[in-house]
Amino acid sequence: MEEVKLSIFGFGNVGRATARVLLEKGEVFKKKYGLTFKVVSVSDRSATVWLPEGIDLREVLNVKETLGKLSSWTNDYEVYDFTPEEAVKEIEADIVVDVTNDKNAWAWHMEALRRGEAVVTSNKPPLAFHYAELMGEARKQGAPYLFEATVMAGTPIIGLLKETLLGDSIESIRAVLNGTTTYILTRMEEGASFDEALKEAQNLGIAERDPSGDILGIDAGYKATILHCLAFGPITFEEIEVKGIDGVSEEDVERAKRAGKTLRLVASVEEGAVSVEPTEVPRGDPLAVSSTQNATVIRTDLLGELVIRGAGAGLKETASGVVSDIIKAALELRGE
Amino acid sequence: MEEVKLSIFGFGNVGRATARVLLEKGEVFKKKYGLTFKVVSVSDRSATVWLPEGIDLREVLNVKETLGKLSSWTNDYEVYDFTPEEAVKEIEADIVVDVTNDKNAWAWHMEALRRGEAVVTSNKPPLAFHYAELMGEARKQGAPYLFEATVMAGTPIIGLLKETLLGDSIESIRAVLNGTTTYILTRMEEGASFDEALKEAQNLGIAERDPSGDILGIDAGYKATILHCLAFGPITFEEIEVKGIDGVSEEDVERAKRAGKTLRLVASVEEGAVSVEPTEVPRGDPLAVSSTQNATVIRTDLLGELVIRGAGAGLKETASGVVSDIIKAALELRGE
Repeated sequence: MEEVKLSIFGFGNVGRATARVLLEKGEVFKKKYGLTFKVVSVSDRSATVWLPEGIDLREVLNVKETLGKLSSWTNDYEVYDFTPEEAVKEIEADIVVDVTNDKNAWAWHMEALRRGEAVVTSNKPPLAFHYAELMGEARKQGAPYLFEATVMAGTPIIGLLKETLLGDSIESIRAVLNGTTTYILTRMEEGASFDEALKEAQNLGIAERDPSGDILGIDAGYKATILHCLAFGPITFEEIEVKGIDGVSEEDVERAKRAGKTLRLVASVEEGAVSVEPTEVPRGDPLAVSSTQNATVIRTDLLGELVIRGAGAGLKETASGVVSDIIKAALELRGE
Repeated sequence: MEEVKLSIFGFGNVGRATARVLLEKGEVFKKKYGLTFKVVSVSDRSATVWLPEGIDLREVLNVKETLGKLSSWTNDYEVYDFTPEEAVKEIEADIVVDVTNDKNAWAWHMEALRRGEAVVTSNKPPLAFHYAELMGEARKQGAPYLFEATVMAGTPIIGLLKETLLGDSIESIRAVLNGTTTYILTRMEEGASFDEALKEAQNLGIAERDPSGDILGIDAGYKATILHCLAFGPITFEEIEVKGIDGVSEEDVERAKRAGKTLRLVASVEEGAVSVEPTEVPRGDPLAVSSTQNATVIRTDLLGELVIRGAGAGLKETASGVVSDIIKAALELRGE
């Protein structure tokens, strides 16, 4: 059995959760798919650890968690000071795994594809700004370019849109794709002010220290852009309309509540038209989700309405999407 | 562009809905997938119409709808009196499409696979009794054997379980998979007796004249068996526990209602254990669906809970699954 060589970029929470799943479920994947994965490099912001014979994942997890950064590593592993692009050029891998937040990652995704390597990513901006180029290069090279974890974590909305419903024509998609805003809006309904709710979300680790990506609707906008690309063809984030929850007042929340509704940051996707904005949703509607649950309602000509609901965030939940794509890419590379 | 030859078995409601989608969306599929379908034979219980150059779907739909059976056809088409097995042996096709209710269809499915032909089916018993043999033969021949429409009509639960969640281990599945029983239980909640509710369902065309397949839980049992085969490996309908809604009294329905719950015929699937039985479901639970909606809740190690909800019956809705599989089979045969 040939080993599948992985080069992992990004070793924050999602990167480490991915490594942990590969470590803990390695035997399962070997038995179920006949696949063995060998991680040949791991990069964080500080450095790249590279060992063509395969890195001990237990060790690299331990180093990262105790020393904080890979550049502090001082044993016999080779530690390099590559840019991601240099790393892609230097390191031979079958699958490049991007679990960074690098906004400019599309350039090194392209480089990996040009080298005929598969790319698996949970990083949204490359797709939200360069979908057409990336998919074009992937097709040209016959290299898988997979991104399940970019939308709804591992909840398989991407796989569903790409690989099922082949006979249906999609008419519209409506979705709640950002859990942080759901949390804040729910706390506001319960009486908290916007600022209090935001601070709570930050204290709980639901919102980041700089929460603007969530609050301003950018995260949901990236995801809605990706859904449009899949359902209707390429569009970029610059072409869509985004309104965040920063303008939502306590009165807005109250008014919705009095009408038996609940405010959610809703993405609407139709052919050539994508918008994200705070929207009143009837209680009992599939989009009236809570906490980090996400939901997508797909309307098609034959099926009518189809709902998929599940985790939209979380470490294991995001790793689920990344690892599913790693397996899919490996099976495709093997010719299945 | 090579044409893909289809041999359609069964020309009742689902067969005709499938033909209509192929007819109406032929141009869409040609443009989107580069696929052109040519129906070389159509069989109903009375006869097989066979024309290697391709049958005019408009004409065969018209004949069936005006004359009631294909054996009445008397123009220049060739009309044969084949058994399905003979038809499979005689007629050269790329994809055999089974939209019959033939309980013994697995024998001619096997014959088609042995000939290297793909099989697309909405017919449940072959899978519920012979999954292992059918998938074994399909693998051996490298021929697609696809069955999206057997569970939840075209709602892509089969595709989801087969092609996504590759990194997750499924722990359990709970589902409401039969709309007729949901209708009857809902009407009983509203005050109707079991017999009244059943008669209404029959008058509305929701229940068949012989409703035992739905009422006794056999239909849901077939579907639950198929879900187990996908999630955990082969099992047959004989090995599962099935309790229908025939024993549900008005008191049972009332008791659930008083407890803020609702009775549904719930399928539970765990490794090696499948059961179908009337179960009290909390209102607001994903399984508290209404009318012909079906819902499935999948629990996995990484993702937690995932819900998929959509049409579980209907003509266009079932044709959606059949046509999606026809396209998938054609793409696979083309090597994609």
